[in-house]
Amino acid sequence: MTPPGFTGSTLDRADAIRSDPAAIAALAADPGARLLDLAAYEPVATDAGRLGWAAMPGQDDTAFLGFVDGAPCFVAIPSPAPAARRTATLFPILDRLVPEDAATYAAARSLADWHARHHHCANCGQPTAPFRAGWGRRCDACRTEHFPRTDPVVIMLAEIGEGEDARVLVGRQPAFPKGRYSALAGFVEVGESIEEAVRRELHEEAGVPTGAVRYVASQPWPFASSLMIACIAAAENEAITLDTTELEAAMWVTRADVRAALDGAPDAPFIAPPPYAIANTLFRRWVAGA
Amino acid sequence: MTPPGFTGSTLDRADAIRSDPAAIAALAADPGARLLDLAAYEPVATDAGRLGWAAMPGQDDTAFLGFVDGAPCFVAIPSPAPAARRTATLFPILDRLVPEDAATYAAARSLADWHARHHHCANCGQPTAPFRAGWGRRCDACRTEHFPRTDPVVIMLAEIGEGEDARVLVGRQPAFPKGRYSALAGFVEVGESIEEAVRRELHEEAGVPTGAVRYVASQPWPFASSLMIACIAAAENEAITLDTTELEAAMWVTRADVRAALDGAPDAPFIAPPPYAIANTLFRRWVAGA
Ligand SMILES: [Zn+2]
Ligand SMILES: [Zn+2]
Repeated sequence: MTPPGFTGSTLDRADAIRSDPAAIAALAADPGARLLDLAAYEPVATDAGRLGWAAMPGQDDTAFLGFVDGAPCFVAIPSPAPAARRTATLFPILDRLVPEDAATYAAARSLADWHARHHHCANCGQPTAPFRAGWGRRCDACRTEHFPRTDPVVIMLAEIGEGEDARVLVGRQPAFPKGRYSALAGFVEVGESIEEAVRRELHEEAGVPTGAVRYVASQPWPFASSLMIACIAAAENEAITLDTTELEAAMWVTRADVRAALDGAPDAPFIAPPPYAIANTLFRRWVAGA
Repeated sequence: MTPPGFTGSTLDRADAIRSDPAAIAALAADPGARLLDLAAYEPVATDAGRLGWAAMPGQDDTAFLGFVDGAPCFVAIPSPAPAARRTATLFPILDRLVPEDAATYAAARSLADWHARHHHCANCGQPTAPFRAGWGRRCDACRTEHFPRTDPVVIMLAEIGEGEDARVLVGRQPAFPKGRYSALAGFVEVGESIEEAVRRELHEEAGVPTGAVRYVASQPWPFASSLMIACIAAAENEAITLDTTELEAAMWVTRADVRAALDGAPDAPFIAPPPYAIANTLFRRWVAGA
């Protein structure tokens, strides 16, 4: 089974070294050290489909990613944050990368972007500076420590019926490319379990009441730094009440429909989400019996 | 099967209303509106085991939680943040609450605490003000919108062997009460899936290599605002290499050991984590065959 997009990085994060500034300085000065410099957050793909790294010297503001193939790897912290949050040319570059390097890129991008947008202390407003090798920022004024943020998001299919008669709920946001439908999704809020967030989102966006929730897979999503948690929820009935501020359409589709969409069949009732999206993984696992 | 602690709130979050300031103002002025005022973040438990709510009038800085039993419910935003992050008297109060009200408390506490520690814009340092009925803060200076933070944490058992011969890895942090062992845990980092975070943490803290990971359950943990994700990972061998900066001891225990610990048996090889912790749920599900 194909693993979810942005997983499988070969990065050894070497957490124990992060709190040793002398060791990090020595690694940064190592002739074998590599730097990922994400202009407008875009990576460079080599002809071999590997991430393009630069040499370290001359770079000041970096975070230590860890080791790749034994080499100490760093990412440059952009300042100010690049304006482009997600360029049209990004995914064609990612398509040329081997999956493990796309995953390393995802980690580096989320970390760099967090720094770029968190130069001040949320508690007191004063400037902060990186510490723990770039895996945190500290405020000298009020002593608060800040850590990179990861936002859990549930993405889910409501399911009704069983076996080959089973159908799942897919929806379409106005911004989607023509014909595209996907799983519904939303941020997990404070004070919620994964299962509660799944049921709330399906109720809010489609008016579909659900019971048991089963977990399927997860992936990091580096726009900006989400943790996507893919689930399937048992629907109690199939009436749809659409929240039109979120979705412009929703419908129930069969396993045959989803197979056709994943195959890109011309008569498929919808266009599937692209392979990098965990919604694609979720559809593949569901047609395989998840 | 007992649900995880801090789940089962009967709160209807009514997300669609949050973006309507006039509707929120009308609800705040409703004679039936209720306010949760968390002095030092402690709730009040009534004799019936319900959350103690106050009347609304006179309160300015509040966030709209949603509806409980049809009543609009708000939480007061403390300013400055109470110093006590987790008082010794808190869990005895929670033990007197019905589970659904403890869950509502967890949501309210995390939301209030996020406001108390995020009065400034992390992007530019200027003061921010609540918007979306208290489910966000906005910076007028740089137009950045900030949203409550939820930190995903993996908590997991490494497992070796099968059936009644299976054993799982438990560990002890120096700060634990005497005799207590629990599942290992750690924050999910940017650029990681749940499964990758589980394997990294088991490797970092105990040197145990693991393969397949299965999801078991989740819960919100309101100190400050974590999403606990409980998993079991298949260990490839049982040699333990302890990271003594994280753990002071770790050991493999059998189903009989875990049953004895959950039962509080005097000859149990360790003391189990308390019922509110999802580690307790994880142990219960594992002895039941998860
Ligand atoms: Zn500060
Ligand atoms: Zn600002």
